Amino acid sequence: MIINKSIKTGSKEELINITGIVEEELRSSGIKEGRVLVFVPHTTAGVTINENADPDVRYDIIKGLRGLKFESMDFDHSEGNSPAHLKASLMGSSVNVIVDDNKLLLGVWQGIYFCEFDGPRNRKFIIQIQ
Amino acid sequence: MIINKSIKTGSKEELINITGIVEEELRSSGIKEGRVLVFVPHTTAGVTINENADPDVRYDIIKGLRGLKFESMDFDHSEGNSPAHLKASLMGSSVNVIVDDNKLLLGVWQGIYFCEFDGPRNRKFIIQIQ
Amino acid sequence: MIINKSIKTGSKEELINITGIVEEELRSSGIKEGRVLVFVPHTTAGVTINENADPDVRYDIIKGLRGLKFESMDFDHSEGNSPAHLKASLMGSSVNVIVDDNKLLLGVWQGIYFCEFDGPRNRKFIIQIQ
Repeated sequence: MIINKSIKTGSKEELINITGIVEEELRSSGIKEGRVLVFVPHTTAGVTINENADPDVRYDIIKGLRGLKFESMDFDHSEGNSPAHLKASLMGSSVNVIVDDNKLLLGVWQGIYFCEFDGPRNRKFIIQIQ
Repeated sequence: MIINKSIKTGSKEELINITGIVEEELRSSGIKEGRVLVFVPHTTAGVTINENADPDVRYDIIKGLRGLKFESMDFDHSEGNSPAHLKASLMGSSVNVIVDDNKLLLGVWQGIYFCEFDGPRNRKFIIQIQ
Repeated sequence: MIINKSIKTGSKEELINITGIVEEELRSSGIKEGRVLVFVPHTTAGVTINENADPDVRYDIIKGLRGLKFESMDFDHSEGNSPAHLKASLMGSSVNVIVDDNKLLLGVWQGIYFCEFDGPRNRKFIIQIQ
């Protein structure tokens, strides 16, 4: 089962918690056991799993990636967004989550985050439930 | 098939080879063909596949990540472990391995490593064999 | 279905677009819906999904990773290729792509890249179609 979702990001760089959206689609699917893949079909955005409790963590992830100083390196790509391409590959284009009893088997502190690195934009992500 | 495993880490930062544990569970499952997902349900630990031969490599990975100097950046998260959250996302929360003839289809030099970035702690990982 | 592919890299560090190879194997398989895993069985090479349009982006990814300055850090591993091991773990050993209607559900600008970090070498990658 493949579900297309749209998301509107509001800043240049931003982590958006999409766990609730994925959970809702899993519930609707009725699938009890299996695996969920969340896939981001963009090259300047990614997806990661990290802390869902303190919202500071998601700003710290952006801050830490900026601390790698890609922004001050000299790149060739004429669009000027090579740092965003690099961050997308560092976070990755997909995450896997195990499904048990129609629930995402995430740790207590884990949430799924859409990672915008070149916004604000209209973005998409794809949920595949198997 | 979902298998929960516990692991006790012994240092602040440490890569622990869990390949043997995953192989043993695969053997017990009797599953011939498919895919194994190793998932870490924590936000300051991750999992990666890297060299299983020279133990220096796993120290070098920790050293290299420390060389990114997250530890000297100024973060907001009050627990003070934002570098560990960043490293967890850089390594990733899961790895996929192909199963062929009831064996992990890993390269000769590859092993699966649990990555502790905020230990020592009692940790878990989940093995899903499909 | 498991397919072994060989690839010859031509430089020390290089991103090679393997999307066409994966697409061709998917077409031959005739599989309509499912998931493709591309797995790299090496510890100094990885795989990532990034921009397929401007070839500069793949050089910028290599340049950006070099900008992390692993090459000037002091490592223990005697082979001297610890930076390559680190980059392999940062990019990851596998990517997942959703299959719909016998096609890879990639974004318009996305391609799958084999990431060589310690070449030139004869390398392999494995495609699993489920």
